[in-house]
Amino acid sequence: MNTPFSIAIHGGAGTIHKHQMSNEKELAYKTALSTALNKGYEALEQGKSALDAIEIATITLEDSPLFNAGKGSVFTNKGTHEMDASIMEGESLFGGAVAGISGIRNPIHLARKVMEESEHVFLVGEGATNFAKEQGFSFESEQYFYDELRYQQWQEALKAGVVQLDHSPLKEDKFGTVGAVACDQFANVAAATSTGGMTNKKYGRVGDSPMLGAGNYANNKTCAVSCTGSGEFFIRGVVAYDVSCLIEYKGLSLAKACEEVVQKRLVNIKGDGGLIAVDPQGNVCLEFNTEGMYRGMKTSSGTEFIGIYR
Amino acid sequence: MNTPFSIAIHGGAGTIHKHQMSNEKELAYKTALSTALNKGYEALEQGKSALDAIEIATITLEDSPLFNAGKGSVFTNKGTHEMDASIMEGESLFGGAVAGISGIRNPIHLARKVMEESEHVFLVGEGATNFAKEQGFSFESEQYFYDELRYQQWQEALKAGVVQLDHSPLKEDKFGTVGAVACDQFANVAAATSTGGMTNKKYGRVGDSPMLGAGNYANNKTCAVSCTGSGEFFIRGVVAYDVSCLIEYKGLSLAKACEEVVQKRLVNIKGDGGLIAVDPQGNVCLEFNTEGMYRGMKTSSGTEFIGIYR
Repeated sequence: MNTPFSIAIHGGAGTIHKHQMSNEKELAYKTALSTALNKGYEALEQGKSALDAIEIATITLEDSPLFNAGKGSVFTNKGTHEMDASIMEGESLFGGAVAGISGIRNPIHLARKVMEESEHVFLVGEGATNFAKEQGFSFESEQYFYDELRYQQWQEALKAGVVQLDHSPLKEDKFGTVGAVACDQFANVAAATSTGGMTNKKYGRVGDSPMLGAGNYANNKTCAVSCTGSGEFFIRGVVAYDVSCLIEYKGLSLAKACEEVVQKRLVNIKGDGGLIAVDPQGNVCLEFNTEGMYRGMKTSSGTEFIGIYR
Repeated sequence: MNTPFSIAIHGGAGTIHKHQMSNEKELAYKTALSTALNKGYEALEQGKSALDAIEIATITLEDSPLFNAGKGSVFTNKGTHEMDASIMEGESLFGGAVAGISGIRNPIHLARKVMEESEHVFLVGEGATNFAKEQGFSFESEQYFYDELRYQQWQEALKAGVVQLDHSPLKEDKFGTVGAVACDQFANVAAATSTGGMTNKKYGRVGDSPMLGAGNYANNKTCAVSCTGSGEFFIRGVVAYDVSCLIEYKGLSLAKACEEVVQKRLVNIKGDGGLIAVDPQGNVCLEFNTEGMYRGMKTSSGTEFIGIYR
């Protein structure tokens, strides 16, 4: 097998300016992205499936305190951490998703278990937690998810009475999500998306991340997509599946489809954010309409890239 | 304004055979469908919006004990009633959705409030309930949702240890959902979908009904769609948005797009069910791949139809 393979990851998009970032912080982000990217890439190199590669990469990002997912999840209005995740596999079109879960170290792994061990696609809240218990998941204490910076942001948000979309002191202009897409040596694609939601969020709000079609989608006929951005707009735009449809029904290339969706269709409904995508030929696209997106890609043809700013 | 207008409704799809249905029961279903259809149609006739018409029609179906939505919702594994609903408006592409809510008489009205009164699209569980309280919703007792037949079905399901997708004694082959789509005199389309979920369901399972793009979608450029069926397949197929994409990107007619999605693409992934759809020219399509679908349509050009079987 010498077919091309590739992987791409993201750690959120938004108003990320170089002048607001210290050298240390920038290095920390790039190192974390590089670690996740290489873990996923190595899996592909060893002949593992795209599904395995995106799970490994996403788990690595979830375990980092830098990104708003898993360990780095932001505080809700109640001072808890509620996470959402979804995963999809392009050959079978099987998928799994969870929303509003707490205490799970790696939500993306739970999403995979929903896909593989339940008859359902989407489980939420207490029910999803019960499923996790039955599947033998261990639960982390609140301490595991505690981060001083996130706590301060929550306190500020509480005082200001606002809902922050991310860990940024710049309100509602940074979207904390992580994700990975990959094409393996067998031309299978897969996508994973995981998020810690919005700082100070109320009302059991669910964004696009756990919604197949909106924040995550994979289909061997077209592409795999993972999104990050203002979730409500990504839901209304059915963004991830929209990229797939432009390829399947309109014959666009991956790059053209991603550009059309992110720079035109999403902008038309005032949606901010970006996405990463691969197709079964191993092509990769990293597209965003914000100031920056934490992102990385690596292909078997030798391209490797880690980026933050536009 | 003399542009054509139309409305279509459904009350679920599945293995519905004439020989299993008494004359009385058939009449009851047809009467309930006819009442909901005419209430929605009258709203359109009076010049009201497609959004108002589909809400009125859906509320009427939710208030009937015959359909698995609102009052007629089935029992969960815990003996409670958990409902999901979504609504979308084709001009603005605004939408609202709720999942896993209890005690609300008309979930579709709550979905509309989410769309109009919150900054979010999708609220679940306790958070959605808190939002409803803040919006001044009154809560019905469990008694309101109690139905002897549904209770017996739950008891049977408990004994058998199965999850039933509907109120049918035939397991997992009838999908209880209600929905409405309409095109108003101003060529605006809108879609509503509401469900009581699966008998004996566990794990906070969410189906396609509250997922914009999957079980519900509306766009003035293309169509409005409401689905009913095996929810997991409708999620994986992103069914409602798929119909829209076939129209927008491939230039198919409403009828051809619905046929392609329900009879081919859904069948390819072994999905059972159906959908109702309208386009901004007032065309209507009622498409299903099951034995039957409770359905009705009425147009300003004089077509009126109520049906149950294939």
